[in-house]
Amino acid sequence: MRLVTYRADTTGAARLGAVVGNHVVDLALLGAHAGQPLPADMLAFIDLGPQAVASTTALLQSCEGRWPVGTARPLANVKLLAPIPRPRKNIFGIGLNYVEHVAESSRALDTAKDLPRQPVLFSKPPTTVIGPGDAIEHNAALTQQLDWEVELAAIIGTRAKRISEADALGHVFGYSVMIDISARDNRRAGQWIYSKGMDTYAPFGPVIVTADEIPDPQVLDLSLKVNGVTKQDSNTRHMLFKVNTLIADISAGITLEPGDIIATGTPEGVGAGRSPQEWLWPGDVVEATVQHIGQLRHPVVAV
Amino acid sequence: MRLVTYRADTTGAARLGAVVGNHVVDLALLGAHAGQPLPADMLAFIDLGPQAVASTTALLQSCEGRWPVGTARPLANVKLLAPIPRPRKNIFGIGLNYVEHVAESSRALDTAKDLPRQPVLFSKPPTTVIGPGDAIEHNAALTQQLDWEVELAAIIGTRAKRISEADALGHVFGYSVMIDISARDNRRAGQWIYSKGMDTYAPFGPVIVTADEIPDPQVLDLSLKVNGVTKQDSNTRHMLFKVNTLIADISAGITLEPGDIIATGTPEGVGAGRSPQEWLWPGDVVEATVQHIGQLRHPVVAV
Repeated sequence: MRLVTYRADTTGAARLGAVVGNHVVDLALLGAHAGQPLPADMLAFIDLGPQAVASTTALLQSCEGRWPVGTARPLANVKLLAPIPRPRKNIFGIGLNYVEHVAESSRALDTAKDLPRQPVLFSKPPTTVIGPGDAIEHNAALTQQLDWEVELAAIIGTRAKRISEADALGHVFGYSVMIDISARDNRRAGQWIYSKGMDTYAPFGPVIVTADEIPDPQVLDLSLKVNGVTKQDSNTRHMLFKVNTLIADISAGITLEPGDIIATGTPEGVGAGRSPQEWLWPGDVVEATVQHIGQLRHPVVAV
Repeated sequence: MRLVTYRADTTGAARLGAVVGNHVVDLALLGAHAGQPLPADMLAFIDLGPQAVASTTALLQSCEGRWPVGTARPLANVKLLAPIPRPRKNIFGIGLNYVEHVAESSRALDTAKDLPRQPVLFSKPPTTVIGPGDAIEHNAALTQQLDWEVELAAIIGTRAKRISEADALGHVFGYSVMIDISARDNRRAGQWIYSKGMDTYAPFGPVIVTADEIPDPQVLDLSLKVNGVTKQDSNTRHMLFKVNTLIADISAGITLEPGDIIATGTPEGVGAGRSPQEWLWPGDVVEATVQHIGQLRHPVVAV
């Protein structure tokens, strides 16, 4: 399934939907019609566990093209929000997870030249999350080095503690796109949370594709454009630590829970690594794409 | 008020209480008796805003010593949980915020000798939180360098974005004690979240003292003992960045929300800074005290 959180109109509540063709099907309304209760909220749906994914997929297939009145709307007529508008904890970010990005970071930033021996974790507060099309804030009082990073995001489906690499992908609910925005000049004694944690610094969406539709997350093209010019263009096969390794590594010490988001790192081509360096400014437009998932498109605005 | 989250018995639900003398008064039950509805949950109470603190304080004073039947229990008969058992986002931690601790860290760890020019932020996931008396887990497969840090925790009461230092303390709901446990050997490319973010690494409580009872958070003694031996003994006046500065600084770029927790940094005397270095091992007991708030006491156990 391709799951979204959407508003039917500007004043409506956020609701859970599935994109089928050019329509958004409201899962709670469809479930009510079918006598199969489903929640109106993505996190509540994730909490139901893997069986709900299977049964909801079957329900959608059984109804396709014959949507009960009021359950489906044209995708073009709804406002998409971030698939999880309000995560229950900070997003787990992974730094230095593509080989060429490690090299450009060591030239341009304050990171080591050697490949990390273990995944490098940081976090982004829930207040960083914005939905498709929302503005990335550029606060010139705080930064003159606003940078982009396209990433594959993995969303955890079931509680994971001390999970083996072999079992790890079984704990993934689905995948999405995240842009890990960074104010490079706001690192603090080497810590990244302030530079990566300001409001609006985590564009997220447009959909979560459930894991059954992406059996191998390590074969996905991902790319990013600024004002129509390609800046990043790579494939998730170049990750230093694959998604299963990340989950095994984190869960060794930190329990992962349903709805947790892991932004799995970015390939080379960030602004800091270019010569001369390039930064985002008000008026710019950032577009990020991950294969089989979709595209985010965000303006940068002065605040 | 001295607010707690407690269970009346081992199977009971977590409830919100106020400690008055040697009793815990259940606020939802007392409010129901008084026709003044109050929530059974700390975060819901914080969300009510400052007026609820004032009216609940008045209610407790009007009833003191004449508690309606069933609303008060001996403190010794209840199990205290962390005052906020499940924060809505990662705890904001502040590193290198006491002058002497900056010096010991630069000698023992990989941090700079110079005082930071701005607050150094990191985060601890909600899964780190444990309540009074709960075990700190020592996983020998992951760490041989488990360390202690006593800290004053500030709990945000009202949404704060771009708040001035002059207004900052008005956004504080109250104060508590946190032990910022760290596995020093789990830093990753300089990032601290893994080393400070493992399960059970944030003992928290025993109470939240509302801000009206602590008009100046910069005059509080704080200390920590391991197996009865004092290791840290300082005062919050030695903070490099005071609580109001921390709130102003963070809120410049990151919106602070009701229930957010800021662990404001630790003074000198951590295990890494001692000569020879000392670490926590299974069987040890850590006691942390902040003046006017209370004491946490936690065993370290092997897992």
